[in-house]
Amino acid sequence: MHKGMRVDLTINTRRFIEDFEELSSIGRTNDGGVNRPALSHAHLEARSWFRKKAEEAGLELRIDGAGNHSAFLPCGTKNTPTLLLGSHLDSVPNGGRFDGALGVLAALETLRVINECGIPLPVNLEAIDFTDEEGTLVSFLGSFAFTGKLKPETLYNPRGGKEKLENGLKLAGLTPEGVLSARRDSKTLAGYLELHIEQGRHLVNAKADIGVVSSISGICFYNLTYIGKADHAGTISMQERLDAAQGASAFTLAARKLLLEKFTDCLVNIGQMEFEPGGFNIVPERAKLSLEFRAPKRPQLEQLESALLENAQAQAHRFGLGLEVEHLGRRFPSPMSPVAQTAIAEASKSMNFKHVSLVSGAGHDAQSLADLCPTGMIFVPSKEGASHSSKEFTKPEDCVNGANVLLQTTLRMAHL
Amino acid sequence: MHKGMRVDLTINTRRFIEDFEELSSIGRTNDGGVNRPALSHAHLEARSWFRKKAEEAGLELRIDGAGNHSAFLPCGTKNTPTLLLGSHLDSVPNGGRFDGALGVLAALETLRVINECGIPLPVNLEAIDFTDEEGTLVSFLGSFAFTGKLKPETLYNPRGGKEKLENGLKLAGLTPEGVLSARRDSKTLAGYLELHIEQGRHLVNAKADIGVVSSISGICFYNLTYIGKADHAGTISMQERLDAAQGASAFTLAARKLLLEKFTDCLVNIGQMEFEPGGFNIVPERAKLSLEFRAPKRPQLEQLESALLENAQAQAHRFGLGLEVEHLGRRFPSPMSPVAQTAIAEASKSMNFKHVSLVSGAGHDAQSLADLCPTGMIFVPSKEGASHSSKEFTKPEDCVNGANVLLQTTLRMAHL
Repeated sequence: MHKGMRVDLTINTRRFIEDFEELSSIGRTNDGGVNRPALSHAHLEARSWFRKKAEEAGLELRIDGAGNHSAFLPCGTKNTPTLLLGSHLDSVPNGGRFDGALGVLAALETLRVINECGIPLPVNLEAIDFTDEEGTLVSFLGSFAFTGKLKPETLYNPRGGKEKLENGLKLAGLTPEGVLSARRDSKTLAGYLELHIEQGRHLVNAKADIGVVSSISGICFYNLTYIGKADHAGTISMQERLDAAQGASAFTLAARKLLLEKFTDCLVNIGQMEFEPGGFNIVPERAKLSLEFRAPKRPQLEQLESALLENAQAQAHRFGLGLEVEHLGRRFPSPMSPVAQTAIAEASKSMNFKHVSLVSGAGHDAQSLADLCPTGMIFVPSKEGASHSSKEFTKPEDCVNGANVLLQTTLRMAHL
Repeated sequence: MHKGMRVDLTINTRRFIEDFEELSSIGRTNDGGVNRPALSHAHLEARSWFRKKAEEAGLELRIDGAGNHSAFLPCGTKNTPTLLLGSHLDSVPNGGRFDGALGVLAALETLRVINECGIPLPVNLEAIDFTDEEGTLVSFLGSFAFTGKLKPETLYNPRGGKEKLENGLKLAGLTPEGVLSARRDSKTLAGYLELHIEQGRHLVNAKADIGVVSSISGICFYNLTYIGKADHAGTISMQERLDAAQGASAFTLAARKLLLEKFTDCLVNIGQMEFEPGGFNIVPERAKLSLEFRAPKRPQLEQLESALLENAQAQAHRFGLGLEVEHLGRRFPSPMSPVAQTAIAEASKSMNFKHVSLVSGAGHDAQSLADLCPTGMIFVPSKEGASHSSKEFTKPEDCVNGANVLLQTTLRMAHL
């Protein structure tokens, strides 16, 4: 065993819990969640809190052009790669206290403990808080800028609107040019580890303490619009009308059925629907729905995409409707590093935690890093799978367990 | 035959067509329709045009507290009832040129011809333009006020919003108190006749010139809201999620099927649908839809209502969802007067027009009058059944035929 491999090392539980409570008070909402959209005042206040904590711990503070905040613990040897640990401090509007924040705090605590104990490691450690993981302004702004995946056209046509992005950057003292210059060379990275709440019910259902993420699902987004003919709903016979609502409804039912019967590992959601002209007494001419689906492996994602689009056309045909298909985006599945998965599993075993392997249906900054360096994700249980809501809850002991697994995995990965 | 029964009498075709073109230019939209929502500037301009035409024709002008505009032709004998002819000059937002306007113009022309020819009649004639038939502010504001059916609470909580109603009344120089005082005694009414475009395809399909309306369908309005649970769409399994979209979609399909199989005389429309929270990646917690259905006879309307609501509950049960049922309104079917139907049929026959009996799926001011005095409606063909759109079109000869049938029916009804 390496001299830096301290299997008995644990985080400072009390400090960790107190810090979590302190951080949760920044941007707190009346219902006990937090409202810290990227580059909002509350988010910047959380970052200011992070800077204070890093400095108090004697860690080096680094902020890149994309606003990504890092606490840095150098190993003392020049030209050594850095093992990154992190997550994000921003939230969705009116989100929960755990999503992202837990991972940043556990990363910071890991560096603090290793620093305090003076444990020598062969790599630098960096606890990073990525900007806008939730994509309020630009999807994965910080980790995409960090990995060189952020395209200028995405930045100049942000999904949250130009004004909002400009205001956010200004408030944070950032510039578009700075964001685009934040790229780090993959050669400097020894790996990336992220602790996160599961945001699902697998761990609770399996009565497991720790989830070892095998892959982050790939995802596709579409808008589908069925097109019929607007008519006075009181005068056109049922047989004659071309009702766009029928196509959209039939597809909504059929998509679920298809997944349940043929794509049992996958997920589909139709989260938005809108009829036009939208009158009580007008047969819908246009019925637009948002379609999102996820699969853990690339071939599945592609098969599912074909099957869904084929079904969408079949429903249009069935009701004599047109169909507009608007492809909005695609992210292929990101398999996690086998080395990192093994390190997480062994760390869990060493602490007698029950761990299971699972797929992350939700997206994470880890998927930006996955093809650049050995990347792993550690999940802890979420009560009722609540996510992106004030109802998010992970028991304090589960948070602590997760942070300890991160610490132990860090020591293992550092010595690889 | 009575001395006032002139079977050869016809309208002044050229004047009628020219007037129709002139009226169509008021509030004209770029696509050739008209935009004259009730009590808008364009609508009030159309009413000003009506006043000018009535005065030029030497007819007496009357405006009641609800803004209903009338051209009046007294028969010269005191305490004689009045035979009403009319429709409305307001349109839906971006509506067509024919809906309502045709009926007002034909009523005005009927009075002009009878006045010019000096035909003595045993009743007064009144060509009336009812306020807000389309219900932009308040459903059937004018004809409900006229018949005493307008409840103060409806007026003080208008479906178009308070501010819009207040602004409209102010612009037209009207007051809520005035509106509620517009009631006319049914003893003073000898009947009501309305010419209107069909807004459906029955006449075109039957190659008929004239429709004799047997009944105006009854109608019910509901909002139905399916209630599930918002969840992260990437993390909750398909089996576990409570997706409100499934209930709303299943009901949308089932409602159509029910009508096609068991209620073949009836119509149903789901014209609006909205999901909440409405995120791409959030399982819909609430799916709200608007439900409207129509039946020509009261027992059918009631049976259909039970069947639809029962099905709505069954769909909620099927997907483990809750269901909120909000009843918004109901109008029972309005049978037209047999006497008026006979008069219209005989008038059509006398001019060798092919006429058919049909149900009006759309609502009309005639239904406000139907239980107060002998009421009849005359329909003329609508190209492709287009309605509430700039695509409304009725051939000039069909408009003229309809106006001549109105004139001849007026003479018949006046002598009853």
